[in-house]
Amino acid sequence: LSSEQDNRDFVVAVDIGGTKILACLVDGNNRMVDEHRFLTGTHRGPRAIVENTVAVVRDMVEKNEVPRSRLLGVGVASAGPCDSVEGAVINGPNLGWQNVPVARWMADALDVPVCLGNDANLAALGEQRYGAGTGVENMVYVTVSTGIGGGIITDGHLHSGGSGLSGEIGHITVQAGGPLCTCGRRGCLQSLCAGPALARNVQERLAQGGSSLSMFQPLQLLELAKSRPEEITPHLVFEAAGRGDALSLAVLREGARNLGIGLTTLAILLDPEMIVVGGGLAVRWDQYIAHAVDFVKANTYPRSMQDISIVPASLGDRAGIVGAAAFARDRFGRDAA
Amino acid sequence: LSSEQDNRDFVVAVDIGGTKILACLVDGNNRMVDEHRFLTGTHRGPRAIVENTVAVVRDMVEKNEVPRSRLLGVGVASAGPCDSVEGAVINGPNLGWQNVPVARWMADALDVPVCLGNDANLAALGEQRYGAGTGVENMVYVTVSTGIGGGIITDGHLHSGGSGLSGEIGHITVQAGGPLCTCGRRGCLQSLCAGPALARNVQERLAQGGSSLSMFQPLQLLELAKSRPEEITPHLVFEAAGRGDALSLAVLREGARNLGIGLTTLAILLDPEMIVVGGGLAVRWDQYIAHAVDFVKANTYPRSMQDISIVPASLGDRAGIVGAAAFARDRFGRDAA
Repeated sequence: LSSEQDNRDFVVAVDIGGTKILACLVDGNNRMVDEHRFLTGTHRGPRAIVENTVAVVRDMVEKNEVPRSRLLGVGVASAGPCDSVEGAVINGPNLGWQNVPVARWMADALDVPVCLGNDANLAALGEQRYGAGTGVENMVYVTVSTGIGGGIITDGHLHSGGSGLSGEIGHITVQAGGPLCTCGRRGCLQSLCAGPALARNVQERLAQGGSSLSMFQPLQLLELAKSRPEEITPHLVFEAAGRGDALSLAVLREGARNLGIGLTTLAILLDPEMIVVGGGLAVRWDQYIAHAVDFVKANTYPRSMQDISIVPASLGDRAGIVGAAAFARDRFGRDAA
Repeated sequence: LSSEQDNRDFVVAVDIGGTKILACLVDGNNRMVDEHRFLTGTHRGPRAIVENTVAVVRDMVEKNEVPRSRLLGVGVASAGPCDSVEGAVINGPNLGWQNVPVARWMADALDVPVCLGNDANLAALGEQRYGAGTGVENMVYVTVSTGIGGGIITDGHLHSGGSGLSGEIGHITVQAGGPLCTCGRRGCLQSLCAGPALARNVQERLAQGGSSLSMFQPLQLLELAKSRPEEITPHLVFEAAGRGDALSLAVLREGARNLGIGLTTLAILLDPEMIVVGGGLAVRWDQYIAHAVDFVKANTYPRSMQDISIVPASLGDRAGIVGAAAFARDRFGRDAA
């Protein structure tokens, strides 16, 4: 009977990104019964954005005739470091937010419980519940894209840490005194192997007179480098490498090696059964991630850890919203501790 | 009634080191009612050493007239990476052991359950239950000595990882391509800031003509460097630094900075409420560890993590045996899951 009741309970999941916000109504069988995507409009500031989100959630619940008693709560995934204990966005670089208590604002307006976590943290939970790491008790999720983030699953649970800030994988130091990171510190994993780092490294080597582009036909990268170096994108670096451009290949190799160092640190510290890699650059598996995996396999310690499984994420950009729904159900479900 | 029964239950805790083995009989109030310390004798090989340990444990239980029904089991802490799931020492550099199934051998001989974990992992548990981190839910313990090791406590439990190898803190990469480590890899935290690294760095700088020793009176370090550089010990580096030797001070500053990088990575990944630092070099708090702490405070991200507490361990070299007893009671106690 208790599980029958559970199946009738809904949650709302929200994913707040720098460009768009996605809100989903999720039923007890984890089906997305309704979803609404709208522009964030960061210029309007956090208060107006949260109010807009509240209105969308309220409409969605009403339109679908979900009785108040069957709505367990709302789970929110947000970009940037988040305090998942307080439900606040600590520092949203893409949002321009500082210490915004999103969960409290939403809970006050909606009169339902609201929890909030970092989007990569919740993507970890999503992949562990319904994605590439389904049922894996000890797992780390790493997203490699414009930034690097992730989340840590220990003994089947999302590890939140003492102040709800756990899992800032992109900001572990891999190269002391290395390149400046968006966080203001140097040598972070993110500053060495996220997409922008790859483009910047190509730009810098070209500026230093890197000449290996002669092997690259039709010299698109070289032409760009001469006329508009600022337009060299991570995508172009991969394209050039795919056509044999030696400089782009060298930059990818170096980036993959640094990514491998970061993943090795995760493996050695946490001994996960699986590392799941998602984000925009995970689709470049053979060109990029695979070389990082090779590095991990050759460098874990002790050697018996070599059989660690490192696999692509399977939920794509839905991982965050799926995780937000799971997070809300874990926190507010009738079986919650 | 159940807790009264628990109070009457004993465990035996064993700490296997490269030089000595300590066995303790611990009652239900966590009192050490008997203990026996004996030489390991690594030359005799693992089978004989385990047999000897079994004999000591058996004698201790008999001598103290502990009825078989009141002995919950044995908890063993061992040097080197250990598979705490299988209860095997994977790689004991100081013991010369490879894949030795200590727990199974002892359990077969004693006919009681036996569990085994890495000594630094179990020291983490000891400090969290009865030491500097008592009651702290998310804690990391780091021991800085001849090597660097540690253990991770998440949500009040020792995190063992998928294959029981979690917490090899000494072997996270801090400086890619850095100095060779005892594990055969390069740039590990241990290779940069454990005791031997400090002595080696002084030796190397002297060999390169480092001349700052003129400020060091009575020139003991300089004399040693000329005649027997191999006799420069970590202890001597600290003594020299204490007398104002600029080269030793510089080496300690650099080591502390690297230790700070490693501790920052732990903080950023795991967001612990507390990091407890133990081991032989923790007594050099003001000269060494404090500078690493300053680095962490200045370099954690996000900034809200700055109030992390980093404190000295309080159980000294008893942390491992205290943790081994707690580990056995957690695993085999009547309240165990």
